[in-house]
Amino acid sequence: MKDVRLYSYWRSSCSWRVRIALGLQGIDYEYVAVHLVRDGGEQRTEAYERDHNPMRQVPVLEWTENGPQRLTQSLAILEMLSERGPKSLLPTDPMARAKARELAEVVNSGIQPQQNLATLQMVESLGGDKRAHGQEVIARGLASMERLATSAGTFLVGDTVSLADLCLVPQLYNAERFGLELNAFPTLVRAAAACAELPAFIAAHPDRQPDCPEQD
Amino acid sequence: MKDVRLYSYWRSSCSWRVRIALGLQGIDYEYVAVHLVRDGGEQRTEAYERDHNPMRQVPVLEWTENGPQRLTQSLAILEMLSERGPKSLLPTDPMARAKARELAEVVNSGIQPQQNLATLQMVESLGGDKRAHGQEVIARGLASMERLATSAGTFLVGDTVSLADLCLVPQLYNAERFGLELNAFPTLVRAAAACAELPAFIAAHPDRQPDCPEQD
Repeated sequence: MKDVRLYSYWRSSCSWRVRIALGLQGIDYEYVAVHLVRDGGEQRTEAYERDHNPMRQVPVLEWTENGPQRLTQSLAILEMLSERGPKSLLPTDPMARAKARELAEVVNSGIQPQQNLATLQMVESLGGDKRAHGQEVIARGLASMERLATSAGTFLVGDTVSLADLCLVPQLYNAERFGLELNAFPTLVRAAAACAELPAFIAAHPDRQPDCPEQD
Repeated sequence: MKDVRLYSYWRSSCSWRVRIALGLQGIDYEYVAVHLVRDGGEQRTEAYERDHNPMRQVPVLEWTENGPQRLTQSLAILEMLSERGPKSLLPTDPMARAKARELAEVVNSGIQPQQNLATLQMVESLGGDKRAHGQEVIARGLASMERLATSAGTFLVGDTVSLADLCLVPQLYNAERFGLELNAFPTLVRAAAACAELPAFIAAHPDRQPDCPEQD
């Protein structure tokens, strides 16, 4: 992979997952900031939709390899990076692999789409309470993960980082943004704490991204 | 895999994906109907949440193999069934594999969660137009798939059935339920028509499930 570019937003949880994976694989990349909020969202411009992602979302990974390549959808990107290596993001045992994907999908399709920017804007436009809605879906999803994480070790599945951890960490950050207490999820918190020690997770944190606003 | 049971609802698009995969792999299973609507939804009972799926969703796959096994999340189930074989549900070429997962995830995390039962009930409870909301998210998602399906052949990725097709077919059925015209998606319609010839797709159709209501 040459000339790797990641279209990302500092606080996008799906972009964050991919930043961690790129770090774990030791892949250098250019960070292309897409501001999801300013002026209605740069991801909704005609140029972005046409040239990068018709779904009008981040992340998008672009690179050169037998010509220009592009891939959207964070889980598809994670699976590809896992297959390319050098570091597999899935266990070798078949049931453990299935468990890692199950937990990743609880976040990817079960929680995040219910509390992403588009959904919260829709809830708000209908006069609903977007914070309460986000809290509810995140709390239920994390409670489910806590119960489904039956083979957790140091990390969410056994003692090796997997896709599940890459999805977990940004989701817990969102939980805290929504004001949720994490005490009810000791297994998840323990795995996230182990992740927080790893350089790839440290480097991928929103606060370290070039488009993170300066804080007082 | 022995004593395979699928917790399913005839019209659940995520259950449908798994029914197709089980058929492609030649796995016999017991169909356990979970009525998602009647009496507030059987998936929301305490017993179902405790014993089958804390996310209160279908599908759930249960089987016996070195003790009782259970797996939730349709994409995790599809990946596991693909790995077990005999039929891989992913191409062998790395970029084609990535494309199949990308297209599957456009449906799995990009469309379906925005138009599933829970989301539509939420939109309705806020006084919104659930049909218009469903139409909008499905139309945008399918338009994106049509543009992303750059390596379509007989099927959505090349000439072999993949995860992408298993997600596509139920989503197109939902599009028609929402009253969308499919003319704008010729690549998707062509792939779905090829799928409709295959016994596993025929057997998995909602109208053929034991919990499909009798029609006049």
